[in-house]
Amino acid sequence: MDFSSKLLENAVNEVAQLPGIGKRTALRLLLHLLGRPKEQSLDLGNALIQFRSAINFCKKCHNISDVELCEICANPKRNESLVCVVEDVRDVMAIESTGQFNGLYHVLGGKISPIDGIGPQQLNIETLIQKVNLKTISEVIFALSPTMEGDTTIFYVFKQLEHSDVLFSTIARGISVGDDLEYADEITLGRSISKRIPYENSLKTT
Amino acid sequence: MDFSSKLLENAVNEVAQLPGIGKRTALRLLLHLLGRPKEQSLDLGNALIQFRSAINFCKKCHNISDVELCEICANPKRNESLVCVVEDVRDVMAIESTGQFNGLYHVLGGKISPIDGIGPQQLNIETLIQKVNLKTISEVIFALSPTMEGDTTIFYVFKQLEHSDVLFSTIARGISVGDDLEYADEITLGRSISKRIPYENSLKTT
Repeated sequence: MDFSSKLLENAVNEVAQLPGIGKRTALRLLLHLLGRPKEQSLDLGNALIQFRSAINFCKKCHNISDVELCEICANPKRNESLVCVVEDVRDVMAIESTGQFNGLYHVLGGKISPIDGIGPQQLNIETLIQKVNLKTISEVIFALSPTMEGDTTIFYVFKQLEHSDVLFSTIARGISVGDDLEYADEITLGRSISKRIPYENSLKTT
Repeated sequence: MDFSSKLLENAVNEVAQLPGIGKRTALRLLLHLLGRPKEQSLDLGNALIQFRSAINFCKKCHNISDVELCEICANPKRNESLVCVVEDVRDVMAIESTGQFNGLYHVLGGKISPIDGIGPQQLNIETLIQKVNLKTISEVIFALSPTMEGDTTIFYVFKQLEHSDVLFSTIARGISVGDDLEYADEITLGRSISKRIPYENSLKTT
C-alpha cells in the first residue's frame, strides 16, 4: 500500500498490529476517526496510553485493579477459603456476572502454551502455591477453557499443589443450556453422559 | 459489563466507539496490548493523537498529505487536464495502484448521503467547480462507487458543471476480470451488454 502521507502510514501501521486488524481495516478506522470530532481521537489515544502506563494489578488475585487490593479481594463478605483459578480478567467478569460464585479469584494471566512462548514462569502460579501453603484455602476450583492449553495448565498447577490437602475441582463440562443434543460434539456429549448428575441436583440453581 | 478497573473501562469504552468494534472485541484488543511491550501501546496512542492533530490535506486535490501540495499534484509529469473525482484517499490509492491513470485527482471527502447528514456543503464540490471554471481541464472522470449515494453525487456534481465544455465520463461498469458470468447480478450483466465495446478495444490495456 502506497500512502500519500507518512502520518497516515504510521497510524495505519500501528493500528494494523492489533490482532484481527489488517491494513485495510486500519485505514477504514482512521478515516472514520477523521470524520468524527477531533476530541474522539485524542481521547482514544490518551485512553490507550493511560491504560498501559497506569495499569495496576491486585496484589492478591492479580486481576486488573486501580487499587492495591481489588474490590472482590477487599470484600469481607466473600468466602476466602474458596479460590477460583482463571485465565484473565474476562473470565472473572464472566463468572461474576453469573452471580453463582462467592469466593475469591486467582488470575493466572494466561495459559501454558509453549508455541506462544508462555511457560509456567510467565504465569502467576508461584503466588497460588504460596496461598495454598498458608492452609486457609479449602477448595481450588479450576475454571479454564477446556482446550489443550487449558487442560495442560490445570494439570501443571495440580501437580504443584497435589501434596496439599485442599479439594480440587473443575467447572462442569456438558451440554450448554438451550443447545440441541444433535449438534453437540461427541466428546462433550460423551462426557456429559459419563459424568451425569442426579436429577434432583440438576434442579438446584445454587 | 462490570469492569474491575475504571482505567480499563474507560479504554474499552473509547475503543468500542470505533465502527465494527464492540465492547468484547475492545476488551480483547486491550488485553492483547497488555501482553505486548509497553512501547507498542504508547506508540499506538501517540500515532492516533498525532494523526488526528497534524493531519493535512492537499490544497489542490484535498487528498491527505503531509505537505501543502501532495506528491501527485506536485508531479509535473501528470496530465493536469484530466481530473478524476473520487470519494476518499482509499480510492486514490486503489486507482494509483493500477498504474492506469496519469491525471490528477479531486477528493470529494465523501458522498451525498442525507441519511448520514452529508449534503453537498460537506463535500469539496465548490473547489471542483472553481477548477473547471479555470478552463484548464479537458475531462472530468467520475470514479465513485456505483451505489445510490455515488450515483446521486455524480448527478449533483454533473448538474453544477453541465454548462462548462469539459468532457464528462464515468469509469466502466461491467463484469469483473475473473468473474463467472453465471454469478454476475442482472443489472451489471445487462449494463455490460448494452454498453459493450469493440473487441479490438478490449484487447488494449491502456
